[in-house]
Amino acid sequence: MAAERDRQRVIIDRVEPEIDGGRFPIKRVVGERVKVDADVFTDGHDVLRCLLLWRREGDRQWSEVEMETLPNDLFSAEFTVPEMGRYLYSLTAWVDPFRTWRRDLEKRVAAGQDIAIDLLTGAGWIEAAGVRAQEAGRRAEGRVLSGLARDLARGLDPEARLRLAFDPELVDLMDRYAERSRATAYGRELAVVVDRERARFSSWYELFPRSTAGIGDGVGGNDGADGPRHGTFEDCAERLGYVAALGFDVVYLPPIHPIGHTHRKGKNNAPEAAPGEVGSPWAIGSEEGGHKAVHPELGTEEDFRRLVFKARDLGMEIALDIAFQCSPDHPYVREHPEWFKKRPDGTIQYAENPPKKYEDIYPFDFDTEDRQGLWEELKSIFDYWIGFGVRIFRVDNPHTKPFPFWEWLIAEIQRAHPDVIFLAEAFTRPKIMYRLAKLGFTQSYTYFAWRNTKEELTEYFEELTEPPLREFFRPNLWPNTPDILTEALQFGGRPAFVERLILAATLGASYGIYGPAFELLEHTPREPGSEEYLDSEKYQLRQWDLARADSLKDLIARVNRIRRENPALQANAGLVFHPVDNEQLLCYSKATEDGANVILTAINLDPHHTQAGWVDLDLAALGVKPEESFQVHDLLSGLRYLWRGPRNYVELDPWALPAHVFRLRRKVRSERDFDYFV
Amino acid sequence: MAAERDRQRVIIDRVEPEIDGGRFPIKRVVGERVKVDADVFTDGHDVLRCLLLWRREGDRQWSEVEMETLPNDLFSAEFTVPEMGRYLYSLTAWVDPFRTWRRDLEKRVAAGQDIAIDLLTGAGWIEAAGVRAQEAGRRAEGRVLSGLARDLARGLDPEARLRLAFDPELVDLMDRYAERSRATAYGRELAVVVDRERARFSSWYELFPRSTAGIGDGVGGNDGADGPRHGTFEDCAERLGYVAALGFDVVYLPPIHPIGHTHRKGKNNAPEAAPGEVGSPWAIGSEEGGHKAVHPELGTEEDFRRLVFKARDLGMEIALDIAFQCSPDHPYVREHPEWFKKRPDGTIQYAENPPKKYEDIYPFDFDTEDRQGLWEELKSIFDYWIGFGVRIFRVDNPHTKPFPFWEWLIAEIQRAHPDVIFLAEAFTRPKIMYRLAKLGFTQSYTYFAWRNTKEELTEYFEELTEPPLREFFRPNLWPNTPDILTEALQFGGRPAFVERLILAATLGASYGIYGPAFELLEHTPREPGSEEYLDSEKYQLRQWDLARADSLKDLIARVNRIRRENPALQANAGLVFHPVDNEQLLCYSKATEDGANVILTAINLDPHHTQAGWVDLDLAALGVKPEESFQVHDLLSGLRYLWRGPRNYVELDPWALPAHVFRLRRKVRSERDFDYFV
Repeated sequence: MAAERDRQRVIIDRVEPEIDGGRFPIKRVVGERVKVDADVFTDGHDVLRCLLLWRREGDRQWSEVEMETLPNDLFSAEFTVPEMGRYLYSLTAWVDPFRTWRRDLEKRVAAGQDIAIDLLTGAGWIEAAGVRAQEAGRRAEGRVLSGLARDLARGLDPEARLRLAFDPELVDLMDRYAERSRATAYGRELAVVVDRERARFSSWYELFPRSTAGIGDGVGGNDGADGPRHGTFEDCAERLGYVAALGFDVVYLPPIHPIGHTHRKGKNNAPEAAPGEVGSPWAIGSEEGGHKAVHPELGTEEDFRRLVFKARDLGMEIALDIAFQCSPDHPYVREHPEWFKKRPDGTIQYAENPPKKYEDIYPFDFDTEDRQGLWEELKSIFDYWIGFGVRIFRVDNPHTKPFPFWEWLIAEIQRAHPDVIFLAEAFTRPKIMYRLAKLGFTQSYTYFAWRNTKEELTEYFEELTEPPLREFFRPNLWPNTPDILTEALQFGGRPAFVERLILAATLGASYGIYGPAFELLEHTPREPGSEEYLDSEKYQLRQWDLARADSLKDLIARVNRIRRENPALQANAGLVFHPVDNEQLLCYSKATEDGANVILTAINLDPHHTQAGWVDLDLAALGVKPEESFQVHDLLSGLRYLWRGPRNYVELDPWALPAHVFRLRRKVRSERDFDYFV
Repeated sequence: MAAERDRQRVIIDRVEPEIDGGRFPIKRVVGERVKVDADVFTDGHDVLRCLLLWRREGDRQWSEVEMETLPNDLFSAEFTVPEMGRYLYSLTAWVDPFRTWRRDLEKRVAAGQDIAIDLLTGAGWIEAAGVRAQEAGRRAEGRVLSGLARDLARGLDPEARLRLAFDPELVDLMDRYAERSRATAYGRELAVVVDRERARFSSWYELFPRSTAGIGDGVGGNDGADGPRHGTFEDCAERLGYVAALGFDVVYLPPIHPIGHTHRKGKNNAPEAAPGEVGSPWAIGSEEGGHKAVHPELGTEEDFRRLVFKARDLGMEIALDIAFQCSPDHPYVREHPEWFKKRPDGTIQYAENPPKKYEDIYPFDFDTEDRQGLWEELKSIFDYWIGFGVRIFRVDNPHTKPFPFWEWLIAEIQRAHPDVIFLAEAFTRPKIMYRLAKLGFTQSYTYFAWRNTKEELTEYFEELTEPPLREFFRPNLWPNTPDILTEALQFGGRPAFVERLILAATLGASYGIYGPAFELLEHTPREPGSEEYLDSEKYQLRQWDLARADSLKDLIARVNRIRRENPALQANAGLVFHPVDNEQLLCYSKATEDGANVILTAINLDPHHTQAGWVDLDLAALGVKPEESFQVHDLLSGLRYLWRGPRNYVELDPWALPAHVFRLRRKVRSERDFDYFV
């Protein structure tokens, strides 16, 4: 019994944010705030003080922030993370006898009681603080406190002693030299991973470099009737201007490495490729190299380096796809057979999902005896491309590799390069997706592609933007990918593409499209019921007519400009859904924390019919007073409407424009006062 | 990197129940189940096994229960706690290659694939299990497994090999000798405190022994015009028959110790007692002794011992009130002045809540230099009364003593006496009340007395009966106490008493009344706006006419009989509120886990008017099919009604009976089939 710990009377409980008891960090980007709440209480009626402590990992000294006391034993404070890297925060709290004494003294004075003895008690606390100041080497302050203790005990007339007891400078000194030897330390140091801003706000465009050879620009024999020429990094660099004009900031390339020959797949995933067929970029490795080589038909490493620089000049970044698997022709298979599982007949175990077999792919055996060697080599692949200036990686199927591997790898890479961003392509069960985000993935693919109805979208995005998910899971929304051509896009026509684009771009601070398939409305599946594209670029070259009149490129450019100009769309906090009396209409708003920028989106989820209804706005969420009129300015059409009160009418024709993306303009007294130019 | 821990591929997460990351135990009573759920998952697609482990604290060997796999990566299992004391539970999980192999083999066979090599793989797993069996000293089973491995690899014809692969006995053996060297241990051992049944189900009656001298039975000078005679333990023993007839099982006595003289309070809390006034039993200690003595006017220790035995004979228990505070006359003040705080003038610090002063009470200084001595002495007070056969303690104001003290004390006492029950009388803020329950208090007072409206009652009892509270907080509901005469009782007349009684007795598995004030409808406050009784027994003797015609004793006896006969009312699990279209009517049901006993209560919260309305029953919660008619049998009035479907009419006159307490009688095909006798 009676351990020294038992003298710590204060309980610190339910600290928020805290992921799994502090097992995992929360995520922020540079300049964001970390608001920390906790239940802090003790027995009896004494006054508590509680400090929020924070520091950069590696620094010795904690910064201290006094936590504010709120009702129901809640304490709250915040700090701002100034740089990339890892920060830590914790709490400490103690019973403060001097503050307790002052609170009680006030009551006694108000009740007209004799306080002579109480002043002696207070003098004792001040004297003790003076000793602590002396011990801390602050001799001047120690002497001041000792003097004040003497004055309070006897030196002054009663009036002056009372004034002294409530002197703010005394309070300040006493706070500084508070008795903290029995303070409760929270006992956990909670971590924050601080990324750069693109971790939170990014617009992705996926393209196959080999399909960037323009129509009619073919040279050599692999053109015309024989199909398009194999695109190169040089073609791809040409294409970057188009992508930049669309307003994207991340250009994501499928694997750029040599493609295996053994069991190479043909067009439309045919089991055997015909001679000359290009194969899947995800069958990585041939005699020409593996994960640290570029496919010769794309060009040279130097060409790739130029591509990275060109993108940077255009304000964009190249993101690479890292898929940890090998074609049977990959150099690793020869050089490190111990990194693969063997079947009882001595052959290497190919990938399978019984009864399906993927004989063109060998998975790594992450549990190999040479784990150290394998794991280090895989990490060195990231380092290799980081050497080319790449700072964003889309990781293929991370959920089929061990969790500890990712936790180790991401921490190691980010220790040296805190600006590296990892996007987890894990289309699997929710708890596994969330685990990968906890383990370190910066962004994550989501179920967005399959959430179509108002109920589905509302439920899913409320889950994603509330605690605990919002603290560690950053969704990246894709209406399509080379693997995902949803039914919504197959059957919804142009309105479905527009609707899904606007949903992705306004619901998610990060989103992406797989183009040019998306803007060119590519929607034919390989066969009915499949989400695979017919003539998918995964298995063959394609040529795209970017100038087609029906392209969505101008709309996309406008949507991306709206995103760049409106900070409300650059974060997922502040998402609020507003009821509409029509199940086909979805309405939601996003606001910046200071309320200065508010975007209200209303969208028709029905690609076939005009839908109309009354929106019942949550005016408080919009920062609008009930009696105040306000303007909504549709940033898509340019039209403006004057609204007042919560109920407002919306009508949307899918073939014209299935959505309003309103910027709210408030603080309006009359129509003449509209701030048209802000 | 690559620590051995990293080979544990399985994640065990969100284990329920678990209080504050395992910091505190959950509570059960003997024979109850502990159902454990957890998220368990791994990378990839392998089959997992997960075991729930449990054992009595102190035992070496875990019992293992295979956890059932549910959708969305949820696993579940349960165990039953057979005896009082502390139990531990934990989990372990691993990737099971043999089960994975069998699942895949099934798919391969179904797809008609060649499985020759796969059988060799399986044989390898079986061979390895055989080795493990051998190593575990199970040589016979080891040989069997080796033989089966050989058969599967080559010994048998193809048909027989396939049959062998799916043989249930093989599966059983393989499960028994599974490869668990890389199993993930959950890492926390979670505790269960197992109490006796009364911890969950108890009916309390509080009385002042000194007020048990019957009317006109006075002998000696302190009777008649001078007021009633001072009751004794002997009088109290006489009174026990009455309490037993009312159906209670715990008789709780305010402190029975010598009462101090210094600053003794007079009638109605007058600052100074007149000569001969009895004082408050909570001003503990005089020259006649302290917490280990009995007040001489109550009798001797031997009298008290007889009282305890008499109660036991009547199927009841005596509960004592432990209030850790001293009158200035307490022997501790003289013998251990170091256990009290001193003021700067050398006097001992009396209790206060500035500006209020309680000069008749000295609080202990729990932070005294002699903490060891003080804490041990306070514990010995419990031990002393345990020596008299007392096993239930109501602890006065535990929230004004340090949390670590209670955690230590309760654990120490229960280690030796697991049958001891502690009721926390902490009327304070919710987080502190809940903390005390986590620290070990068996039962807790609640805010029930002040929850009156349908919304208040519904919200509060949903909170109390859902996780996490239901796992550690056992509410004990009191419509009144000597300190609490609510406005509801002051102004609601007899209907309010009946209503509050029935609410307490049917909403709470444990409840209590302070009598005879309650059954005799005592409702006059000391002054308007006060919750104190006029002429409170806390400061003076009272005589009660138990035979008064308006006494609620017969109703109370009936309610307590209903509680004893209906297990649904003996637990708080299974509480469901049913909507009623009248805000003054509250309807709720409780059901046993097996659904065999269901009690449906409908109550009129308005003590002044008859209220009627339609109940919209949650039939599923009642175990009734939508198309099934069922009987509701009012155990209060004896009347029976035949109901069908969710909507049923209820009308309650507060002056007749403000409530129905229905027992549900189901499985009825026609009216003739009613099981009237069950």
